[in-house]
Amino acid sequence: MTIKVYGAALSTNTVRVLTCLREKQVDFELVHVDLFKAEQRLPHFLAKNPFGQIPVLEDGDLILFESRAITTYIAEKFKETGYDLIRYQDPKEAALVKVWVEVESQQYNPAIKPIIYQNFVMPLMGKSPDQTIIDASIEKLGNVLDVYEAKLISTKYLAGDFYSLADLHHLPYTYYLMMKTPYTDLINQRPHVKAWWEDISSRPAFKKLTESMILGDN
Amino acid sequence: MTIKVYGAALSTNTVRVLTCLREKQVDFELVHVDLFKAEQRLPHFLAKNPFGQIPVLEDGDLILFESRAITTYIAEKFKETGYDLIRYQDPKEAALVKVWVEVESQQYNPAIKPIIYQNFVMPLMGKSPDQTIIDASIEKLGNVLDVYEAKLISTKYLAGDFYSLADLHHLPYTYYLMMKTPYTDLINQRPHVKAWWEDISSRPAFKKLTESMILGDN
Ligand SMILES: N[C@@H](CCC(=O)N[C@@H](CS)C(=O)NCC(=O)O)C(=O)O
Ligand SMILES: N[C@@H](CCC(=O)N[C@@H](CS)C(=O)NCC(=O)O)C(=O)O
Repeated sequence: MTIKVYGAALSTNTVRVLTCLREKQVDFELVHVDLFKAEQRLPHFLAKNPFGQIPVLEDGDLILFESRAITTYIAEKFKETGYDLIRYQDPKEAALVKVWVEVESQQYNPAIKPIIYQNFVMPLMGKSPDQTIIDASIEKLGNVLDVYEAKLISTKYLAGDFYSLADLHHLPYTYYLMMKTPYTDLINQRPHVKAWWEDISSRPAFKKLTESMILGDN
Repeated sequence: MTIKVYGAALSTNTVRVLTCLREKQVDFELVHVDLFKAEQRLPHFLAKNPFGQIPVLEDGDLILFESRAITTYIAEKFKETGYDLIRYQDPKEAALVKVWVEVESQQYNPAIKPIIYQNFVMPLMGKSPDQTIIDASIEKLGNVLDVYEAKLISTKYLAGDFYSLADLHHLPYTYYLMMKTPYTDLINQRPHVKAWWEDISSRPAFKKLTESMILGDN
């Protein structure tokens, strides 16, 4: 049975899951959920995810939501297929992947998400961005990226000298930061962060997906 | 070599890790980090966690931070010891644990954390709470708890009819909500959430820790 992803091509959290499936060379079908028509709030979708958000993954009779739970599930279930995102053969490396996956979730995401929301999502909804929120988030994100810059001097990727799920989780939001906001200096003025970003964003598994992210093919 | 936890007895994120270690019956040593003296910002601590936060776990030469990465590491490393928190023998149940672990991290925590911060941490620092932030967070938390109430009608715990890491992760913040804020109705007025809370908060692995949480033995 083919894995189904309910989501949208321009949704950051959907793209996180699709990138993972492509790294793992797992076939899937993308079932489009139209956020502009609020399809995520319809009863048949709420039955899949009671929080009314995309993405949702269906694997047989198993229904999963929360993008980071889904990527971890895929990376573990298909651990021997495609690129190894979780370093499952080395418990220490695997533990460090977990640490930096959590750093994205707890430190990076809360800082970058409001910037993308204000600069990209609000205009899509015909509203104007709140500069106070943007400024506070830029400061927060700068502090997080200072830690990344120092870390990336000693290792090529966040969890070590190997690309992992921790790096992958950063792709969609950072891509919009670079393409849809004027705040590209946050990345570009930190040389090791810049080199890391150029490296991870040029992986084929992600690069292909950016075409429909940027076209706004919702 | 004994596992070391750098943290403080009243720190929510430390207690999350300690509860997990106790459920797994793993011996550990708690090394006190004094937040009131900003010890988490000293160079020797920043060398362990560059984000300058507790908890940190040391297992031999492996140094981990981020409480949820640490608990997952412990639950996996000691999967055959103590209580099974991750349902490792059943891939479907294990996947649902991951989903609800992420729900705590992405939906519950961002809503409850500002309430505890404003009501409990700000006064500890001699500052007064911001009621606008509290009110917005109460509304958000109420919406999340409405989903929990509906879910807990059909299963006894969040991920299924078994206590898991997903439930455990809710303990420290919810405990302060109930003990240190006036907003206990958020839990008490939802009968299934209330029953769930009474159940999970009375587990011995957690109950013992609440004594020093409440005494403010930092
Ligand atoms: N923590 C969730 C967030 C999901 C999320 O916010 N999805 C957005 C699209 S990127 C959405 O469904 N928004 C519509 C809504 O919230 O009504 C995850 O990682 O999957
Ligand atoms: N996401 C981190 C948060 C850690 C955190 O916020 N720890 C608090 C104590 S509960 C802390 O160290 N605060 C001091 C500071 O941020 O300077 C985790 O889950 O471990």
